[in-house]
Amino acid sequence: MDEIEYAVAGRVATITLNRESRLNAFTLRMRDELIAAFDLADADDDVRAVVVTGKGRGFCAGADLGGGGGTFSSARSEPQRDGGGMVALRIAASLKPVIAAINGPAVGVGATMTLPMDVRLAGESARFGFVFARRGIVTEAASSWFLPRLVGISQAMEWAATGRVFGAQEALRGRLVSRVVPDAELLPAAYELAREIADNTSGVSVATIRRLMWAGLSWSSPWQAHEADSALMHALGRAPDAAEGVTAFLEKRPADFPMAVSKDLPESLPEWP
Amino acid sequence: MDEIEYAVAGRVATITLNRESRLNAFTLRMRDELIAAFDLADADDDVRAVVVTGKGRGFCAGADLGGGGGTFSSARSEPQRDGGGMVALRIAASLKPVIAAINGPAVGVGATMTLPMDVRLAGESARFGFVFARRGIVTEAASSWFLPRLVGISQAMEWAATGRVFGAQEALRGRLVSRVVPDAELLPAAYELAREIADNTSGVSVATIRRLMWAGLSWSSPWQAHEADSALMHALGRAPDAAEGVTAFLEKRPADFPMAVSKDLPESLPEWP
Amino acid sequence: MDEIEYAVAGRVATITLNRESRLNAFTLRMRDELIAAFDLADADDDVRAVVVTGKGRGFCAGADLGGGGGTFSSARSEPQRDGGGMVALRIAASLKPVIAAINGPAVGVGATMTLPMDVRLAGESARFGFVFARRGIVTEAASSWFLPRLVGISQAMEWAATGRVFGAQEALRGRLVSRVVPDAELLPAAYELAREIADNTSGVSVATIRRLMWAGLSWSSPWQAHEADSALMHALGRAPDAAEGVTAFLEKRPADFPMAVSKDLPESLPEWP
Repeated sequence: MDEIEYAVAGRVATITLNRESRLNAFTLRMRDELIAAFDLADADDDVRAVVVTGKGRGFCAGADLGGGGGTFSSARSEPQRDGGGMVALRIAASLKPVIAAINGPAVGVGATMTLPMDVRLAGESARFGFVFARRGIVTEAASSWFLPRLVGISQAMEWAATGRVFGAQEALRGRLVSRVVPDAELLPAAYELAREIADNTSGVSVATIRRLMWAGLSWSSPWQAHEADSALMHALGRAPDAAEGVTAFLEKRPADFPMAVSKDLPESLPEWP
Repeated sequence: MDEIEYAVAGRVATITLNRESRLNAFTLRMRDELIAAFDLADADDDVRAVVVTGKGRGFCAGADLGGGGGTFSSARSEPQRDGGGMVALRIAASLKPVIAAINGPAVGVGATMTLPMDVRLAGESARFGFVFARRGIVTEAASSWFLPRLVGISQAMEWAATGRVFGAQEALRGRLVSRVVPDAELLPAAYELAREIADNTSGVSVATIRRLMWAGLSWSSPWQAHEADSALMHALGRAPDAAEGVTAFLEKRPADFPMAVSKDLPESLPEWP
Repeated sequence: MDEIEYAVAGRVATITLNRESRLNAFTLRMRDELIAAFDLADADDDVRAVVVTGKGRGFCAGADLGGGGGTFSSARSEPQRDGGGMVALRIAASLKPVIAAINGPAVGVGATMTLPMDVRLAGESARFGFVFARRGIVTEAASSWFLPRLVGISQAMEWAATGRVFGAQEALRGRLVSRVVPDAELLPAAYELAREIADNTSGVSVATIRRLMWAGLSWSSPWQAHEADSALMHALGRAPDAAEGVTAFLEKRPADFPMAVSKDLPESLPEWP
């Protein structure tokens, strides 16, 4: 990995955007490395949650504009897949919960790549901008699907139509982030949340629930959720983690879940997206 | 009814979960009695709203874990319908608005069964937990459809991935409940809201609007809503309740709506779910 | 135009509901004039945003009830299209962002017609009511699609099932409006937001983003957004506004976007609704 760092400690993977001299601006290489890092995290049973942050004083300044006025002009005549969207859909499909620790400017794709993450925490220095209309392009990374569902269509349109850059408090009022903390407490807060997951829950349950919840946001009817629930409760209700989870609760002791995400996901796990 | 109480007074039905010695823990019998109670409420034109609460100091502690580690393990090889989901879908289809008066712990299915209710009010003693991942199972009762739509996917994932038990104030900040009131004011607040509906509105209008709103949350396009609206405005605009509603308003007197939900629902009422 | 005023100044169109003696109550003529006004705004490249407000002390008091008890009773045996919905769907399809400046009572269709607008600002005198159930009819203007997505289904049902009339602060707490300002500051606040859009962004980008965001709220999967993004980024990334937007940013000067909504929308613009 060249443009990101990937490290695992204490059952949490940390992905650090790592182009400090460019405020971690996004490149095609960063796109590919991010996708590879989420593949690693999904395959590693020692990873129970993923924290994403930026090196230095930025989170991600958006697409690297080193190409000047031609930055967004493709040499090919046929459309290619939008790079931000490739990352966003990979994150959406993650089997591990993802926590963004936004430590500085998160602009353009630096903002939109956080939308399929589960929880966004902001340091006081965080700034945000859905600046696409100021560059003559459009919101990308499937953010037209994610953003109105996260913050409501009115807030989404106000931010996207003005292209305004705004601070952490406006992001909190608009419900783009769950909490704002002093910069020095940002990573500790992210790891505390990650450990709350790792220390208390079944990884197979969390992976299945993550898929259910995001797919559920896609489904048109609660009947689809009910069908999925029925199959999954049948499969997991008779599996070892449920026996241990209930027994440990009744015995008032911490649970020691035996199942592993790499081998024990239920066959009826919904596909999404 | 054995495990719930059902009573009608002042045009409001009250359903009280009634296994006080077990903090009203959920059983298959309670499942069936809840479904029967909502059938009664829908069939009774004297019922204009439904209040659901718990006996004693709990609302509902979740599935009764008296079966120990095998509680969620089905003896049958084929999946059966998830019991929480059967209740949730029945509540979703209710013709009368449903108000949850959450008086104590609402955990597991005790929390998820409230999601298809229209308004959740919490007493200060209320506590909530989407604890499924701590038991090795998955979110049920179609909550992957309801919860992200109620509180947003980030808040839903934070609660479901941690399995945390949290208090009334966190529920309010996360918009899971509409209001928190002192415990002694909980039922009065629920009845005040129920009476605001009963005293001022047409039951046929409210039943139709409830179906439209929840179906509308399912529909992919506002065109579907527009088609339904056009048929329903045509049917109800020429019906007696509209004549009385407009006339009473112009005469500045309370309306006395003549129509009845049991006989006068429009044929074009959307089916949902 | 007889029942509305339409004026363009400073790259912003203002639509003023103009039946002051009737608190701007809605008629079939107003319906047709509103639709025509949005057609004018879309066709005029000098219009970068639309502000909608009411003449005098009201915004819009709802359907004109001059027809008495028969107001909502159609003479035709077949349903016609709901008039509020015709306006709402036209506004939803607008190529220009729409800002509601709600200066007084917005009741019935006066409230629901604002839901497909992008941002709602309220003066302190604003009042709101989804009063349909008090008149014996149903929520219209496709509000069963819009309202639960804007304010959540619980708040939507509380307002629609009670038919309550409520003030600007309750609207703000329930997230129906983005801000409440003193009455004298309402139009200035609306124009300031409109100018923030007009002064900083590409009109083609904003029109495309508006369509993407509202369509995105309709799409079941982020894959649909990703496919649309990929085509649109390809088309606009190589177009003159992107070259100017990036170059101006790198040169730290205001951008002067050359493209026009009337001629330069991308072929892959999603259709919606």
